[in-house]
Amino acid sequence: MARKAAIVGGGVIGGGWAARFLLMGWDVALFDPSEAARARVARVLEQARYALPMLYEGPLPPEGRLRVSETLEQAVAEADYIQESVSEVLDLKHRVLSDILAANPDAPAGSSTSGFTPSDLRAGLGEGAGRVLVAHPFNPVYLLPLVEIVGRDGAVPGALEAVESALSGIGMVPLVIPREIDAHVADRLLEAVWREALWLVRDDIATTAQIDDAIRLGFGLRWAQMGLFETYRIAGGDGGMAHFLAQFGPALAWPWTKLVDVPELTDALVAKIAAQSDAQSDARSIAELEAERDGNLVAILRALRARGAAAGRAIAAHEERLSLAPGGGAFTTVERTIPLDWTDYNGHMNESRYGQVFSDASDRVLDAFGAGPDYVSAGFSYFTVESTIRYLAETLAGERIRAETRITLADGKKLGLSHVMSRVSDGARLAEADQLLVHVSLETRRSCPPREDIAARLTELAAAHASDKV
Amino acid sequence: MARKAAIVGGGVIGGGWAARFLLMGWDVALFDPSEAARARVARVLEQARYALPMLYEGPLPPEGRLRVSETLEQAVAEADYIQESVSEVLDLKHRVLSDILAANPDAPAGSSTSGFTPSDLRAGLGEGAGRVLVAHPFNPVYLLPLVEIVGRDGAVPGALEAVESALSGIGMVPLVIPREIDAHVADRLLEAVWREALWLVRDDIATTAQIDDAIRLGFGLRWAQMGLFETYRIAGGDGGMAHFLAQFGPALAWPWTKLVDVPELTDALVAKIAAQSDAQSDARSIAELEAERDGNLVAILRALRARGAAAGRAIAAHEERLSLAPGGGAFTTVERTIPLDWTDYNGHMNESRYGQVFSDASDRVLDAFGAGPDYVSAGFSYFTVESTIRYLAETLAGERIRAETRITLADGKKLGLSHVMSRVSDGARLAEADQLLVHVSLETRRSCPPREDIAARLTELAAAHASDKV
Repeated sequence: MARKAAIVGGGVIGGGWAARFLLMGWDVALFDPSEAARARVARVLEQARYALPMLYEGPLPPEGRLRVSETLEQAVAEADYIQESVSEVLDLKHRVLSDILAANPDAPAGSSTSGFTPSDLRAGLGEGAGRVLVAHPFNPVYLLPLVEIVGRDGAVPGALEAVESALSGIGMVPLVIPREIDAHVADRLLEAVWREALWLVRDDIATTAQIDDAIRLGFGLRWAQMGLFETYRIAGGDGGMAHFLAQFGPALAWPWTKLVDVPELTDALVAKIAAQSDAQSDARSIAELEAERDGNLVAILRALRARGAAAGRAIAAHEERLSLAPGGGAFTTVERTIPLDWTDYNGHMNESRYGQVFSDASDRVLDAFGAGPDYVSAGFSYFTVESTIRYLAETLAGERIRAETRITLADGKKLGLSHVMSRVSDGARLAEADQLLVHVSLETRRSCPPREDIAARLTELAAAHASDKV
Repeated sequence: MARKAAIVGGGVIGGGWAARFLLMGWDVALFDPSEAARARVARVLEQARYALPMLYEGPLPPEGRLRVSETLEQAVAEADYIQESVSEVLDLKHRVLSDILAANPDAPAGSSTSGFTPSDLRAGLGEGAGRVLVAHPFNPVYLLPLVEIVGRDGAVPGALEAVESALSGIGMVPLVIPREIDAHVADRLLEAVWREALWLVRDDIATTAQIDDAIRLGFGLRWAQMGLFETYRIAGGDGGMAHFLAQFGPALAWPWTKLVDVPELTDALVAKIAAQSDAQSDARSIAELEAERDGNLVAILRALRARGAAAGRAIAAHEERLSLAPGGGAFTTVERTIPLDWTDYNGHMNESRYGQVFSDASDRVLDAFGAGPDYVSAGFSYFTVESTIRYLAETLAGERIRAETRITLADGKKLGLSHVMSRVSDGARLAEADQLLVHVSLETRRSCPPREDIAARLTELAAAHASDKV
């Protein structure tokens, strides 16, 4: 039988929690006295249904049942796990948590509070108080895995483990913070940046857009895959973290931020940081960490490029400015380096990426006779109906390859292409492909003859191909 | 003729600059009095040669020539652009910049300084001082596009434009900061986080590894694609940035960071931020920004998952815990949702991704008779030698699909598979594929018969397939 979660508070955060539990197969009871909550949660759920399953290579469990409860008591009474996400007002949180504990005798209750400590929340809640822990997620809750868990000290036996188990079961990563502090960990870092950024805007040093670019085109990319300390460990080189601290410690005395209350870099603090960093780095050398970092950055940048977003958009724009014709010859349709995200566990290029090279090569031919993106915008396209690939040799990440293409058939709706892919360094033939494409109307989604101007240009190009040996 | 860059200072940053210029076709003259510089730069260049071309879909220009100069004067005399990356010591920077200006009469000189302002750098440099600008990059310089340009005021005519043109030509995004301040923009934000993080470690709130996770599993993912303000704009909902500030402004008075010198949120400051955010958001609605954010996050998370890194590793581990058998039947080999990064400009699944589904389906069959990753580790594998795909219908992002597979040939080294891919919602047949695989030794990279235990299990599975209708 499906497990039951109660979600108290149906804002964007509560909605995100509800969506995550539902999509991972839990039944969810939602309580929020506001009229608007139902629509808000429905909207978040719709977003989550679209995005979250895309992260998985298999199907998710059957979606749980969402019930909107009339009262808080109904929502939480039979819940195995309760998550409170009401507004950041301590009195309100106390009232709601007290009602939760009264209505359910056993279940642990996580609070989404950004700032309050477990001690703040538990004050005055009586003997059930130890069932309350901070479980602080990040928006969008249905995509970001982090959840900060605070309140190990003072928790009733089993409560921490129950929270960890429930939340890792729905795909989150519970980070158990050993000691409580206002705003926990991540929001303290965010608040520091936020305050510094407000100064920069106030003093006209930079605009909001410039500050966002300063983040997402630079260190934001590093932080999506390694954090602060691991990144700086690399900067310290083979001397490790203690060397980095010796090198950059002096900046703490400089006016580099408005954050002026600076911890003293005592020998003890340097030793502590160095030891923790050693433990964290998992005995990997700086060279290994650098390779890991570069590989991750390439993968993220390529993902953003495919989206046309942020740093990826900048790379695409740069390539357009370079406007490099692929290769020299009339029939060279692809020339590129194999990125490492194209390789599989055999260490060579995944077979589907051969297909991608030939698909790119076909696009290039379509471009060449005017059937590219503009033609698609006009409502026409060529769809591939069959392709056969012969795999002749292995291809490794970092190798430069070239595809050469010949038009083998240009007959009304039908277009036949023949491709050869080879390695640039030694000319070795890596794969061959034959493709059959059919011209379609994007309106009717059915085949139809190409527009006359396009047909004429295709005939011309096909004639040129026929007169050459490839 | 290739343009010429002079790189003064051959550390990790100088090496990164050299690599970027070289790989974008510039000739580079390097000067660094240290013995170790040559090896350091060679190492960075090797890393860059591997990673940077992977970001581009076509070939980069022919690599430029690297020359190591005996003297600073030789390095900079004929340069079109000069980049200084010596240690962060103002006296040293003054000496080096003075020599640079004396040895080259025209070229602009960018300084990689993290902290010094243009006024700091220019002090005492005489009439050439206006050729010096801050051009502050981020490590690894050959991958991260951001470069902060400071010093518009006081620059000689044309110098700013020359720097922007040179650096955007090598694929960077020059961010011209309107007013100078210690540590520019990005490093101020970094320094604020750094100081806050030092407190957290010092006070035993969290370890370095926990702080790194708090970043890379949460807001670090947001910051790789949107910055601080755009993300908070979304959090403000349809009320926009002013609403967000009204909601979260009070936290500025709370002890959420050690950064206690807080700017006052006057009406004027709120209005300024709201107006800049409006200008930045490009008239997109919150719903559009959310869709953009979610799409980017999905793409980044999937990229990290493919790398087995950070948040992506957490998702893969979660899916393993879910241990969901794909579909119900014995021959269902793939069941999944189509992610949006699999679609092309036609709006339907790119043909190469059909190939990926069938490749995944084949892997699943190999797993089923024991020829999965463990068998690969033991030195054997199956390579696909030919595949034919028939594309029957379009597939859209968000749709759930299933592949069913039948073994059609199991004869010594040869393995034949036949796949059918259909849409789960209505059973529509989307594509079919036939694949021929050959068993190989990974040592000799040649075909050979499968190991006996594997051959036996394959025979058994093939017999089961033959007795069923698929």
